[in-house]
Amino acid sequence: MTQDRPIENLQAILSEEDLRSLELIKLLREIRPLDLAPLLLHFDPEDKAKIFDHLDSDSAAEVLFETDPRSRDEILEHARLDKLAPLFDRMPPDEAADIVTSLPPERRDPLLRLSPLLADHVRPLLAYDSETAGGKMTTEYVSVGENETAGGAMRAIQGSIGAETVNYIFVVNGEHRLRGVLSIRELIASRPDAPIQEIMVSDVISAPPEMDQEDVAGLVQKYNLAALPIVRQDGRLLGIVTVDDVIDVIQSEASEDMYHLAGTSPDRPTTQKFHRQVLDRFRFLLITLAGGLAIVLVQAQYGHALESMMAIVFFIPAIIGMAGNVGIQASTIMVRGVATGEIQPGRFGSVLRREVLVGATLGILFGFICGALAAWGSSLLGADSDLGYAVGLGMVSGLTVASLMGAVVPLACEKLGLDPALAAGPFVTTLNDLTALTLYLAIALTILKPEVG
Amino acid sequence: MTQDRPIENLQAILSEEDLRSLELIKLLREIRPLDLAPLLLHFDPEDKAKIFDHLDSDSAAEVLFETDPRSRDEILEHARLDKLAPLFDRMPPDEAADIVTSLPPERRDPLLRLSPLLADHVRPLLAYDSETAGGKMTTEYVSVGENETAGGAMRAIQGSIGAETVNYIFVVNGEHRLRGVLSIRELIASRPDAPIQEIMVSDVISAPPEMDQEDVAGLVQKYNLAALPIVRQDGRLLGIVTVDDVIDVIQSEASEDMYHLAGTSPDRPTTQKFHRQVLDRFRFLLITLAGGLAIVLVQAQYGHALESMMAIVFFIPAIIGMAGNVGIQASTIMVRGVATGEIQPGRFGSVLRREVLVGATLGILFGFICGALAAWGSSLLGADSDLGYAVGLGMVSGLTVASLMGAVVPLACEKLGLDPALAAGPFVTTLNDLTALTLYLAIALTILKPEVG
Repeated sequence: MTQDRPIENLQAILSEEDLRSLELIKLLREIRPLDLAPLLLHFDPEDKAKIFDHLDSDSAAEVLFETDPRSRDEILEHARLDKLAPLFDRMPPDEAADIVTSLPPERRDPLLRLSPLLADHVRPLLAYDSETAGGKMTTEYVSVGENETAGGAMRAIQGSIGAETVNYIFVVNGEHRLRGVLSIRELIASRPDAPIQEIMVSDVISAPPEMDQEDVAGLVQKYNLAALPIVRQDGRLLGIVTVDDVIDVIQSEASEDMYHLAGTSPDRPTTQKFHRQVLDRFRFLLITLAGGLAIVLVQAQYGHALESMMAIVFFIPAIIGMAGNVGIQASTIMVRGVATGEIQPGRFGSVLRREVLVGATLGILFGFICGALAAWGSSLLGADSDLGYAVGLGMVSGLTVASLMGAVVPLACEKLGLDPALAAGPFVTTLNDLTALTLYLAIALTILKPEVG
Repeated sequence: MTQDRPIENLQAILSEEDLRSLELIKLLREIRPLDLAPLLLHFDPEDKAKIFDHLDSDSAAEVLFETDPRSRDEILEHARLDKLAPLFDRMPPDEAADIVTSLPPERRDPLLRLSPLLADHVRPLLAYDSETAGGKMTTEYVSVGENETAGGAMRAIQGSIGAETVNYIFVVNGEHRLRGVLSIRELIASRPDAPIQEIMVSDVISAPPEMDQEDVAGLVQKYNLAALPIVRQDGRLLGIVTVDDVIDVIQSEASEDMYHLAGTSPDRPTTQKFHRQVLDRFRFLLITLAGGLAIVLVQAQYGHALESMMAIVFFIPAIIGMAGNVGIQASTIMVRGVATGEIQPGRFGSVLRREVLVGATLGILFGFICGALAAWGSSLLGADSDLGYAVGLGMVSGLTVASLMGAVVPLACEKLGLDPALAAGPFVTTLNDLTALTLYLAIALTILKPEVG
């Protein structure tokens, strides 16, 4: 079914001067749309448009949604609106809404005029931020009235094959307020004349449309749900968020945290435009640079004092590097723990105490190791053997403080409603570098009292 | 339904000298097992055991599986085997297998003898590594013969309510080889006398039991599956991996990568035993320490030459810090790109070229900025204005090489079948620090030619 070298085969046809459309159509039919979507990266914008033009409507819709953001933007930019509109009608409305909301209003509005069906489905979703429950939900689900029977519910399912393949039926009252839920499996096991209210579960887990997508994912994961009903404050059922959307949320939230911790932007970096990528990383590196220059100034402050004992200076990168790394360990543990729910707000205090203890233990261990090595090597470096005390104490204090700050900053951000990962990356590292340097130099100059030249 | 302060309420009852068992049972009934599981952290091992003893069997099974690994270990260690065995019989077999495989053989074997039902289900799963498709799969699924009708399949479902709530029916032939799949929804929409072979989809996506869990997760995500059938080489259907297990895999693989990049172990760090946590982080920090000490030696090598121009030394932390950060950016982008499938093996070359270009661009930008600042401040630092050239060129070369190495190492590891994240953390940073230092010192000493004292 799937071809061996789809990219090469497509490129061969596309590179011909007179495009053999029938061949191209035939070739494309042999590739699953979900396999084709990631391959578009390898083609230039014009070839992407050609490929897209030759897909049947179902495949085109799937490829458009599943491909990388850059390819999608290029297709949406170059495709004719009257060709795009019918595609949207064939897509699940939450996916169509995701794409339509990403368009600038001058392209979005004519599209919604061309497709009244799309407009009906998409308008309610456009009201919510795309990273909330309302933005992620689909309005395609199966619901039945609370006074229905099992047999009636069965007929309702048979009439709604178009809905997403979620195997729950939601029970609503006359005002469309959510009253209960039952799985198709439970339905099949019931007598056809059983009242719905007897077989449904009425203790339903639901979420408001304003809930952040990360919390939605947490609920779905915690309760192993296949779909989470989204319910307005007055109890009306608005839509459902399905587990496949939740997987995407979990992946992208994890990516975002990782990219922020590393100091880069979370926007699929390898398919981003070149200048955006450089700019995004540049911004974060400016923080690191500011820290580095501050370190130059702090050292210059002690200039002459240091000249008479260079060995003090030689250990600065080692102490800064260790403090930075201990801080990143602590920050990553906090950021990830908060994201996965391992660290609940009630545990902040105990987690912090523990982290400080771990940091201090590591500080003492490495303080001993480094102090001993520095003392042993001091004659080689032309320094007093007291250098060992300075390096050792610098390590202890630097690592303990770095571990504390690495843990406190993300937890404080979380409490204040800020993104813990964004603050925890280069910012905390820079802070830790400077603190460790200042502590070490203060200790070293006190212990070693170098002659001021 | 859910209480306001469950921890305080439980602690109040548990702290009484004579335990009022009935009160405790009543209190526990009011907490959803999935809400109780994460709260166990707050109790000491004895209280955990008391809570566990007072749960009904269904809730106990759920709590045991959903709680943190440390609480689970403590319960498994203290609970009586003849109390645990019936619990396992009530759990889905893949979850039971996950727990049973984590037990030492001297506790596992008596347990399997006590529960023949468990042994039947768990033995086939024990044959596979827990991080493969075979280890994640459940043997509870609904299958029907290929010569069945829709009506017959419906009856098969009605007789298997105990199976996991996955809404697919797998079609097998006489030798239990997988022939097709259909959803319950499609089944309901069919006439009862329709032959299964007419309504099933025969182009089924499946995986071998040896497939790594990360690849399994990728398949389920790519094709939006609710369950993935696991099929032996001869075509026999062994079990299915369900989407809720896949979510757990995605979360834990993301955690693992993040923890490795930060240089710590991926084993739920905040609930790990204290000494394990310290040891795990200690190991990674040893790499950073080795790098830091190597930096001391490299500087000592140039000792006297540097004494006459301290300003060169003052910029070392800035250059090392920038190179380290650029390297982490590149590594994180590669590690996460490979994990999410954004970077496919066919794209390694183009991604690398791009990364080197980004790195060189950032190097040139920061080289100019830093070089200009260093030249401008050189008189303040008592240095020749040529210091600007040294710092600028050091920055350009350091950042370019760091970006290249940060990208190459994870991709090379991926090609060699090693874990890209494990190599990319402190190891690459240390390598980059040393390279940047060596390049900078070589350039600075060539340009500035300080008098050797």
